[in-house]
Amino acid sequence: MSSDKRVCLAYSGGLDTSTILKWLILEGYTVVCFLADVGQKEDWAEVEKKALALGAERMIIDNLQQEFVDELIFPAIQCNAIYENRYLLGTSLARPVIARAQVRAAHKYNCKILSHGCTGKGNDQVRFELAWKACDPSLQVIAPWRMPSFFKRFAGRQDLLKFAAENNIPVSSTPKAPWSQDDNLAHCSYESGILEKPDLPAPKDVWTRTVDPLDAPDVPTKFSITFKEGVPVKLEVEGGETVTGSLELFKALNEIAGANGVGRVDIVESRFIGLKSRGCYDSPALTVLRLAHIDIEGMTVDSKVKSIMAWVGNEWSQCLYNGMYFSPERELLENSITYSQKHVAGKVDMMVYKGAAHVLARSAPESNLYSEEQASMDTLEGFSPEDTSGFIAIQAIRLEKYGAAKIKQGEPLTRSS
Amino acid sequence: MSSDKRVCLAYSGGLDTSTILKWLILEGYTVVCFLADVGQKEDWAEVEKKALALGAERMIIDNLQQEFVDELIFPAIQCNAIYENRYLLGTSLARPVIARAQVRAAHKYNCKILSHGCTGKGNDQVRFELAWKACDPSLQVIAPWRMPSFFKRFAGRQDLLKFAAENNIPVSSTPKAPWSQDDNLAHCSYESGILEKPDLPAPKDVWTRTVDPLDAPDVPTKFSITFKEGVPVKLEVEGGETVTGSLELFKALNEIAGANGVGRVDIVESRFIGLKSRGCYDSPALTVLRLAHIDIEGMTVDSKVKSIMAWVGNEWSQCLYNGMYFSPERELLENSITYSQKHVAGKVDMMVYKGAAHVLARSAPESNLYSEEQASMDTLEGFSPEDTSGFIAIQAIRLEKYGAAKIKQGEPLTRSS
Amino acid sequence: MSSDKRVCLAYSGGLDTSTILKWLILEGYTVVCFLADVGQKEDWAEVEKKALALGAERMIIDNLQQEFVDELIFPAIQCNAIYENRYLLGTSLARPVIARAQVRAAHKYNCKILSHGCTGKGNDQVRFELAWKACDPSLQVIAPWRMPSFFKRFAGRQDLLKFAAENNIPVSSTPKAPWSQDDNLAHCSYESGILEKPDLPAPKDVWTRTVDPLDAPDVPTKFSITFKEGVPVKLEVEGGETVTGSLELFKALNEIAGANGVGRVDIVESRFIGLKSRGCYDSPALTVLRLAHIDIEGMTVDSKVKSIMAWVGNEWSQCLYNGMYFSPERELLENSITYSQKHVAGKVDMMVYKGAAHVLARSAPESNLYSEEQASMDTLEGFSPEDTSGFIAIQAIRLEKYGAAKIKQGEPLTRSS
Amino acid sequence: MSSDKRVCLAYSGGLDTSTILKWLILEGYTVVCFLADVGQKEDWAEVEKKALALGAERMIIDNLQQEFVDELIFPAIQCNAIYENRYLLGTSLARPVIARAQVRAAHKYNCKILSHGCTGKGNDQVRFELAWKACDPSLQVIAPWRMPSFFKRFAGRQDLLKFAAENNIPVSSTPKAPWSQDDNLAHCSYESGILEKPDLPAPKDVWTRTVDPLDAPDVPTKFSITFKEGVPVKLEVEGGETVTGSLELFKALNEIAGANGVGRVDIVESRFIGLKSRGCYDSPALTVLRLAHIDIEGMTVDSKVKSIMAWVGNEWSQCLYNGMYFSPERELLENSITYSQKHVAGKVDMMVYKGAAHVLARSAPESNLYSEEQASMDTLEGFSPEDTSGFIAIQAIRLEKYGAAKIKQGEPLTRSS
Repeated sequence: MSSDKRVCLAYSGGLDTSTILKWLILEGYTVVCFLADVGQKEDWAEVEKKALALGAERMIIDNLQQEFVDELIFPAIQCNAIYENRYLLGTSLARPVIARAQVRAAHKYNCKILSHGCTGKGNDQVRFELAWKACDPSLQVIAPWRMPSFFKRFAGRQDLLKFAAENNIPVSSTPKAPWSQDDNLAHCSYESGILEKPDLPAPKDVWTRTVDPLDAPDVPTKFSITFKEGVPVKLEVEGGETVTGSLELFKALNEIAGANGVGRVDIVESRFIGLKSRGCYDSPALTVLRLAHIDIEGMTVDSKVKSIMAWVGNEWSQCLYNGMYFSPERELLENSITYSQKHVAGKVDMMVYKGAAHVLARSAPESNLYSEEQASMDTLEGFSPEDTSGFIAIQAIRLEKYGAAKIKQGEPLTRSS
Repeated sequence: MSSDKRVCLAYSGGLDTSTILKWLILEGYTVVCFLADVGQKEDWAEVEKKALALGAERMIIDNLQQEFVDELIFPAIQCNAIYENRYLLGTSLARPVIARAQVRAAHKYNCKILSHGCTGKGNDQVRFELAWKACDPSLQVIAPWRMPSFFKRFAGRQDLLKFAAENNIPVSSTPKAPWSQDDNLAHCSYESGILEKPDLPAPKDVWTRTVDPLDAPDVPTKFSITFKEGVPVKLEVEGGETVTGSLELFKALNEIAGANGVGRVDIVESRFIGLKSRGCYDSPALTVLRLAHIDIEGMTVDSKVKSIMAWVGNEWSQCLYNGMYFSPERELLENSITYSQKHVAGKVDMMVYKGAAHVLARSAPESNLYSEEQASMDTLEGFSPEDTSGFIAIQAIRLEKYGAAKIKQGEPLTRSS
Repeated sequence: MSSDKRVCLAYSGGLDTSTILKWLILEGYTVVCFLADVGQKEDWAEVEKKALALGAERMIIDNLQQEFVDELIFPAIQCNAIYENRYLLGTSLARPVIARAQVRAAHKYNCKILSHGCTGKGNDQVRFELAWKACDPSLQVIAPWRMPSFFKRFAGRQDLLKFAAENNIPVSSTPKAPWSQDDNLAHCSYESGILEKPDLPAPKDVWTRTVDPLDAPDVPTKFSITFKEGVPVKLEVEGGETVTGSLELFKALNEIAGANGVGRVDIVESRFIGLKSRGCYDSPALTVLRLAHIDIEGMTVDSKVKSIMAWVGNEWSQCLYNGMYFSPERELLENSITYSQKHVAGKVDMMVYKGAAHVLARSAPESNLYSEEQASMDTLEGFSPEDTSGFIAIQAIRLEKYGAAKIKQGEPLTRSS
Repeated sequence: MSSDKRVCLAYSGGLDTSTILKWLILEGYTVVCFLADVGQKEDWAEVEKKALALGAERMIIDNLQQEFVDELIFPAIQCNAIYENRYLLGTSLARPVIARAQVRAAHKYNCKILSHGCTGKGNDQVRFELAWKACDPSLQVIAPWRMPSFFKRFAGRQDLLKFAAENNIPVSSTPKAPWSQDDNLAHCSYESGILEKPDLPAPKDVWTRTVDPLDAPDVPTKFSITFKEGVPVKLEVEGGETVTGSLELFKALNEIAGANGVGRVDIVESRFIGLKSRGCYDSPALTVLRLAHIDIEGMTVDSKVKSIMAWVGNEWSQCLYNGMYFSPERELLENSITYSQKHVAGKVDMMVYKGAAHVLARSAPESNLYSEEQASMDTLEGFSPEDTSGFIAIQAIRLEKYGAAKIKQGEPLTRSS
């Protein structure tokens, strides 16, 4: 069949994408289903069985965990990525690896069209489609939830269930949770449904990756993380295991931090498309690693470089959130991030306990930036305190002019406001 | 006596400043002692008695708590102030109010000289002196710890003790802690001494304002904070008190958060003078209020304004850390901060528990930025999903060019690195 | 008639908007025509006559010159506005005043719909519509050049001419220039048509507001500009007039600078919608005033404030270019701009000559920032050169660490690359 | 002799450094004189003869022109470097290459001390010494103009002349110009003396590298500059030569632009040490190349990348101005600059005429960013104008909320201020 009628659909096995799969087939398309394994819990065989039963030509399941950690999560840690001061970008980080792999799948199976089940109000549609268009501008997109012929037909869940019944689409017998969630190695997110009331706390059973801090163990877990070139290379748990591979280390930290209730965030954020929405996020390992990385940078990165990189990290985070991973600016920023991390190496001792992560100590033997002797208030070895007088005097020149002008203007600085 | 020999000395009653007081008198100066009450624990009568006994002309004790909270701490909350991603600036915030009040004291008591007991390696000397010079460029400064005639004479603690013995300076019978601390409403800091080994955890008994998270109550404390124009105006504790005055509210939060182990930070930071040093900080109320304020901004501040204010807040924080409070740039930045907060109003529900603060929910009835209906994934009321297609298509124009160029350059974006 | 069928159309009298006017009427709309006088050359009576002849209910001509200068052009001067390092934003500055006045006209004449003749590829459609939607979200927009029913019918100029002939739309007998232009007080722009080949120089007869530098007078024109609060308040031409009103002053400078060939810019710029395009701009007065303003800021603004304001000015410029004048971020930025200009006052002596503007001298008697005595290399009055040694020593601390680390890494800084 | 008494002195042959040379010898030092050839006009043999006659052990003259252009000037062009919106950094750019070479000379001739004749109020002392300390923290510095024993003895020019007479220091018979100047390939600067009155125009005979625009040729000179990776690689003069080597090209452009009066700047700037000073600068080639580079970036650099690089270029410029070339932040920034320039290639056609440089046209055949077809207002090939409607609608979401809030607050955006 001509590639013009071949669609590569992001298929999760859920009611929405099953409906889309069937609908596409009924519209005359041949559908190749694609599902990325980015660390979520899933009955993979069941998904494949369902896709094929519904008429998919094939079901591709692509394990992207390793590249997800190495190419997306670790750069995020290197630049202390965060969005609007709170969100660790878990979903945003997964989208580029998924989108890229889906384009590769489309190429392999001769599809000229890509499709997804994202809603028309969210960030994910933007992230997938911008990534697809950058990766291969010649591909077409079918976004059913933005097509009136689709979204008017399926205006509510009842319409979907009716269609499912008519088309032999199996529907899970467990009732749908009154919110949606997105799970991957980096985090699990919870939004929409009852969470759309930001003045109500998230229900206790929302969280899947962290235990409730109130239910966490009564004894803290201590461990140390060793960094090299700004990424974690070793995890040593006190009285426990030592883990070294990037994926294994990240997973182990997810377990440890999650078991201690670390990594919950509940915010109202600004979506790229201009709406505010409430999101709840569970990011155990990311939370710990971001803190550890900031700490080791304190020992190993020059103050002015830190200040520049804070800006760079913020720009990188905005790129990711807005779906601009495959962009010239992200490439440029990441080049700086990598460069800035060459000498970020050392070990951070930490503790997680009932919802909080704490840095206890750190060492960076290869860096000369921290010097106990220089820092010491008890010795003047190699330091001339008189120099500071000159430093202050020169810094004061423009401040004295400011103060003098204020006096002249009748607003002396000595006055409290 | 001529004002040229009159010194206004920042006097704490400790061994260092008592030595300086006596030394100044021996050098022929008349000394007016000054101590700001910025919320630290102190036996005020004892300090006064000691100063007068040592020969000070008078001891001024100036309660600055209210202006400290209103003019410094609250703007810090409004701009989510933080230094190097961790430090909440507790000491930096107190310095401007203290320095300004000391200049006023110097004016009142006809002193042309100011003096302090700060070391020559720290930030505080810079903060005090830049503030003094801005407030009144005509004042002179005596900084004994930067004068060879002083620091060579008092090269170690033994020299200070010997001088104390010879000059009837009373020395506390409790042995000095092997670190130094600075206490005010905003925080208590701990540094130097045994803390100069950043690879060793801070001793358990360092912390004075927060209980150890492991010893914190087994039941969380819940409360809500109401903001108006970006500052907290009401604290309502679940099953407890309601507090409204700015100073009272801040103190109450210090108690609540501290009792639950919230607010500890242990970092290696970059001092203004180019050295790295390790600091431990206890900032219970600041920690909670910063988090609450970020949260309520999520509901009430436009995304682009947030992004601009993140930069402004960062610049403001650097001004404060570097002692540039009395500077034209801080004035300019703060003008923006105040302006940005006009409509930051609402209520945040929180919980503190064993070392962590959590946001549970929030509401901002006066803001139209969050709209449940608009945000909802379950309705399209007032939203045309087709618009997003156009939005994506236009955003993609330059990304498609980027992807096409990459293909031409032999580095297609579909390739994993 | 119901306001739902009443359109307020931005009408210029040209072939495009005349076609739209007629087409709207044929589609059943009642049309109120609107034309803003922002300083362009126009036969106003002729435009009105034409609009009414074609069936417009009325023709509103609104003189916005004064608010254009005071509310848009002068803030641009205050923040040294520029886009992509070259473009002085002439068109971008006019759009907000025009859009706002058109909304007022729509309100006055009971129109619920606004319309314009902008193309679908340009910036202006975005600027108008974003401004309209911010000013009154309840208004609808008809953008014919983005409606397939319109743009497919009028696919080329021949279709427009045919429609004109059929509908008695008078067409100018002078042949259309092979490019388009937009004229206002701030500038005249030239783009599209033969200018779309950026490798060919703009034809000599493109420029309407500046003489060719090669044809400019052989004698320079000298003048001085007096600033107060960052805006020009007096223009004194050597051997000539003195002008004080903001609008009059701006117009006089347009004449003087234009007559000397000053203000041409020819660039390839990035449109908001992701395309690059070539634009030629004639902005005589803006060019001179931007230079003069930068110069007087050199005398009157603190270095750190300058550095912050450079960033603010850049953000403001991007807002304007992208049609985000009516946005919370522009309001925030402009608040800072105004605040930063309180003490920007003084006089700049300049010369324009054959295509270039030159600053010759300046004075700012009310500012204490420049001090001949302090700056002087010939005296040390009030300056201790030893202070600089300390200043350098402290600044060097982190650089010495950097140099030492480089030596250890085998990349000594002494090596040329 | 022990290296502890061996000084490597930056020696120019002038009265100041000749006095310092003699003074150092009288103080018991052995002096190796060092002079960098960075393109200034100099009678090199005469300088050497004078140094040796005064007792220098040797006179090193080091031709650094090639590395100056390649390592400093070209990166400045790549990032469109400018300080405070006007100054092209000519002196700042030369300092790092000179300082580095002087350290190499000190190493070669076993000197542990470096010395210079910079004044205590200027930027150059900071630039030299920070560079020296970064390149080799073990070196000592003698800065006579900051040593009371020196500057009190030589309080005025008469003292220097008297010392010269007593010590057989030859003094030039041509009277000293009433200002100082610093000449190198990048520019010639003029400051101090009579130029310290910023309200008086610089005398006509100040400028050495540009003719007065009024005296420039009546016929423009046209040429094109070809860029590759952001640096000029070919200069083709209309009806004249073609130049390709970096140094030769830069020199040729200096001649052409200087002969047409292009490159003069007269400003009041903020020195690093907090003072404002007036500087006049002649930078013919830099002026032309900065403009050409900005222009070719318009064709070849993505808009978002441009915006990031504007910030990077500004930071780089501040590093250079403040003497922070040898710093980790400059290294980081320059890494980004280089990276951003990979695809900056093309040709810019220009004209210089009586004080102004003009871009006439440009082409960049290897870039796909500018597309005549896409940009064209006359065709819709490959463009769906409807997309822009969606783009605008989504961008408007938050602006509509802003406008609605303004109406509610009683400040509708339709109101002129």
